[in-house]
Amino acid sequence: MSGILYGVSVGSGDPELITLGAVKAIGECSVIAVPRTKGESSLALTIAEQVADMSGKEIVFFDFPMSLDKSEWEKSHETAAKDICGRLSEGMSVAMLCLGDISVYSTFSYIAERVKQSGFICRWIPGVTSFCAAAAVCGSPLVSGNEPLIVVPASSDNFDELLKQSGTKVIMKSRGISDRLRTVLESRPFFAVSDCGMQGERIYTDVNDIPENGSYFTVYIVK
Amino acid sequence: MSGILYGVSVGSGDPELITLGAVKAIGECSVIAVPRTKGESSLALTIAEQVADMSGKEIVFFDFPMSLDKSEWEKSHETAAKDICGRLSEGMSVAMLCLGDISVYSTFSYIAERVKQSGFICRWIPGVTSFCAAAAVCGSPLVSGNEPLIVVPASSDNFDELLKQSGTKVIMKSRGISDRLRTVLESRPFFAVSDCGMQGERIYTDVNDIPENGSYFTVYIVK
Repeated sequence: MSGILYGVSVGSGDPELITLGAVKAIGECSVIAVPRTKGESSLALTIAEQVADMSGKEIVFFDFPMSLDKSEWEKSHETAAKDICGRLSEGMSVAMLCLGDISVYSTFSYIAERVKQSGFICRWIPGVTSFCAAAAVCGSPLVSGNEPLIVVPASSDNFDELLKQSGTKVIMKSRGISDRLRTVLESRPFFAVSDCGMQGERIYTDVNDIPENGSYFTVYIVK
Repeated sequence: MSGILYGVSVGSGDPELITLGAVKAIGECSVIAVPRTKGESSLALTIAEQVADMSGKEIVFFDFPMSLDKSEWEKSHETAAKDICGRLSEGMSVAMLCLGDISVYSTFSYIAERVKQSGFICRWIPGVTSFCAAAAVCGSPLVSGNEPLIVVPASSDNFDELLKQSGTKVIMKSRGISDRLRTVLESRPFFAVSDCGMQGERIYTDVNDIPENGSYFTVYIVK
């Protein structure tokens, strides 16, 4: 019997945001796969360790480069998928941890595609996104009634066009404050939450208060 | 000491999608407030009952009309907020249940606004949205890399404009298949998930398979 690969969402920082299903999936796996990209990995693992019993489990780190070199990036996925498939074929189940929700900008999707193509079963365990966690911390709805919700990475091609649309905009994946992000934040009411649910959590409503080299885990909610 | 009003996200159907924090918040409250709108209420309560100990708790139902009559709608919010404030001032804490995530199209936001204005503390417990749960069931990422994620109610004013944007579109809050929704689904690859995580869960990829009077809890993911 082959093992199963679980993609396990652990929420966005506060360990209480993990779901019962995520804790159960971790419990059923003998191997915990931790993707590592600039410190992310340790945070997902720190969250999981606070709510699930990790004793006796093998913890395997996978390094994924932030590099824009496509062949290097694909090679890192191939290496991880190959390692995981080896364990699955030996009957071990593997839980790959993921910050936020597993369907929203996760590395898991690339690995799962390869593992599935090799004939193994993958299960996706959804979780709380960083933007839902950030809105909850601010005590403010993201959207009501018929309002659209537009989630857009800071370097997205249609960033400017989407920012013009009515509805709530969530800006993610920004390293610091770019000029176009600054223009948006100077002209509209917003909440920015950095390190949501963690010790260093901060809420900003004035762009001048946000540090230049702000956390990558900052979510901007623009009304 | 006044009580606290908790807005508790219970996820989108499968009881395993509730978070540890939501179960804890329910445990800390002596009153469970259940908004009722066309059967939604009982589903949120059914989920909560499967994962939290409800013994000794008072369960209070609040009816919110689906009516477009604004004064009737506001009156229902005022009635609920007044009832809840009365309990909070007597020192009871209240957990208002919410399907999906508390910041995404929830009735709680209207009630919390009034309760907060009356001087009481409100806490928002985030959860798994129906679109994250639907993507996980399909084993498919919602968004990768720099793709935007556009969540749009079927009757939104800028529906057509947003559907033209690049990125993944999630269409929500549709009662059956309108003409404009049909046009979209006939021309693009999509997944539709109805009653996600529940007994009657169905995944559709062909518009002709979707029943005319499809469930209100159908999420359409259009690439």
